[in-house]
Amino acid sequence: MRTPVAPLAVALGDPAGIGPEIVAAAWAARVERRVPPFFAIGDLRAVKAVWDGPIVVLGAPGDAAAMFPHALPLVQVDDPGEIVPGVPNLPGARCALDSLEIAVGLCRAGTASGVVTGPVAKAQLYAIGFTYPGQTEFIAERCGVAEGNVAMMLAGPTLRTVPVTIHTPLAQVASVLTTELIVARGRVVARGLQRDFGIAAPRLAVAGLNPHAGENGMLGRQEIEVIAPAIELLRAEGIDVTGPYSADGMFHPAARARFDAALCMYHDQALIPLKTLHFDDGVNVTLGLPIVRTSPDHGTAFDLAGQGRASPAPMIAAIRMAGEAAARRAG
Amino acid sequence: MRTPVAPLAVALGDPAGIGPEIVAAAWAARVERRVPPFFAIGDLRAVKAVWDGPIVVLGAPGDAAAMFPHALPLVQVDDPGEIVPGVPNLPGARCALDSLEIAVGLCRAGTASGVVTGPVAKAQLYAIGFTYPGQTEFIAERCGVAEGNVAMMLAGPTLRTVPVTIHTPLAQVASVLTTELIVARGRVVARGLQRDFGIAAPRLAVAGLNPHAGENGMLGRQEIEVIAPAIELLRAEGIDVTGPYSADGMFHPAARARFDAALCMYHDQALIPLKTLHFDDGVNVTLGLPIVRTSPDHGTAFDLAGQGRASPAPMIAAIRMAGEAAARRAG
Repeated sequence: MRTPVAPLAVALGDPAGIGPEIVAAAWAARVERRVPPFFAIGDLRAVKAVWDGPIVVLGAPGDAAAMFPHALPLVQVDDPGEIVPGVPNLPGARCALDSLEIAVGLCRAGTASGVVTGPVAKAQLYAIGFTYPGQTEFIAERCGVAEGNVAMMLAGPTLRTVPVTIHTPLAQVASVLTTELIVARGRVVARGLQRDFGIAAPRLAVAGLNPHAGENGMLGRQEIEVIAPAIELLRAEGIDVTGPYSADGMFHPAARARFDAALCMYHDQALIPLKTLHFDDGVNVTLGLPIVRTSPDHGTAFDLAGQGRASPAPMIAAIRMAGEAAARRAG
Repeated sequence: MRTPVAPLAVALGDPAGIGPEIVAAAWAARVERRVPPFFAIGDLRAVKAVWDGPIVVLGAPGDAAAMFPHALPLVQVDDPGEIVPGVPNLPGARCALDSLEIAVGLCRAGTASGVVTGPVAKAQLYAIGFTYPGQTEFIAERCGVAEGNVAMMLAGPTLRTVPVTIHTPLAQVASVLTTELIVARGRVVARGLQRDFGIAAPRLAVAGLNPHAGENGMLGRQEIEVIAPAIELLRAEGIDVTGPYSADGMFHPAARARFDAALCMYHDQALIPLKTLHFDDGVNVTLGLPIVRTSPDHGTAFDLAGQGRASPAPMIAAIRMAGEAAARRAG
């Protein structure tokens, strides 16, 4: 007999952004969209300001599963005071950070089976002393995993991509890119596809850096000097890796069918095809952590907050994907 | 009464590549795919080696329109000797270059209303003394247009993109990119959309160079220092230009509906979304020339040549798009 999987912990993100309303909308769609049980972590008033459905504030997070069918279960963080949708402030940033911290802690403790993070405002977080590039690095540190051993995967129904370099200015990508970095990401991705996506023998396709993947060195030599050696090293570890490919030929339907994830050399090389195809159902998955972690691949959208216009589809996709990964890890 | 538009001149490209068979297949599909009248320029034996349909070798290219309903009209170039599909050689490269030269000449003379170019093998062309980066630059020179005043547009049914820099190694893109270059491309694209696509007031969207379009300078300053000034200059000329946008958010359906063409800063930024969406019906259009010129956006595919497996869809799309542009210019 299988032990039931614990509910997911969903950090609401910045309370003045669209996080509260899209999480509430995800709960409201739990039956027709088959959203797995979760509880929200954040501020009750921030949710009430944008949603009039039933909410139950949890005394013990362990009660979440029992309450989930009837009301949105919520773990209240320290009261940030009044939050106005669309107007970020520093108490709101503290609330977002508290939510994240509690979500990770409950997941590490086994009370939650995975963490889903709502969008935060980095500028506000920096103003309260947050020193990480983003939530992912914060979570990695809390889990005791070095940043180089996690990978950000963007996953949609027909495509998964992983940027090897992420928030690197384009002019610096070529100098930041190393064989070691590609190998490290490739390892994490192969293991993550096995563990969280149930793919026994993952196939990785590696993009080139330059136009036409360098055209035999005519348009750049990184494919020959940096990328191909990484592919060889990964193959030597028994991983099914091919490339480097011309990036522009990797993402049409027939090409996508030939791999389980594309290792891309820079941010837009990974994000352009993913968002072109899966703007509304692409999920950001952090691979390499001891816990399951996903997030919708969009920002706080302060300009939309409180209007009920923000689509909950990406948040629903993120919660569902976290639920599937958590079930695989439990099973 | 409108004068009938002259037929198009279709250069077969490398005779050992897939050019001959896909052009023949385009002719065979002329009725059901509504392919406008054209004549091929290349080597009769190379076509016969891969196709057994009717061919008429033209004494005078002006006869092409009358013959088109009955047989594939062909202008024979100097005999390259025996051509083996899939095996490029130097006589084949000379044949490809002759075909291109004649196509441009006939179009300049008014015998053809536009030029469609089949794929060539650059390595072979270089070996016979060709000194241009590609066919486009050759055609521009033959038409007396400076390279900076043409633009390569990739056009599919739901997206048009233009790379501002083209065959530039990624590490050099940031240093090659200038405000002047973006302005020059923007002007050519705006005029080209009016003249060849019939869009009276074209809307251009300009991509950023860096992740998140530089995130207000945090991830690179080219958006602020190079790209935004170009947008201002183009606006001052009365062109409807917006941006710079995060490139990864520009290509989902709702975003695409907001512009007629995207100006992209480098090759893969333009080619990834185009080929992701329109791998089989994307057309390469050269804007800024006194003549209409299109080509399918694929290579010689020597590995497929002579097997009847190459899809003629991109060539058909290229011929149709050239026909539409030629009709607009004539009308």
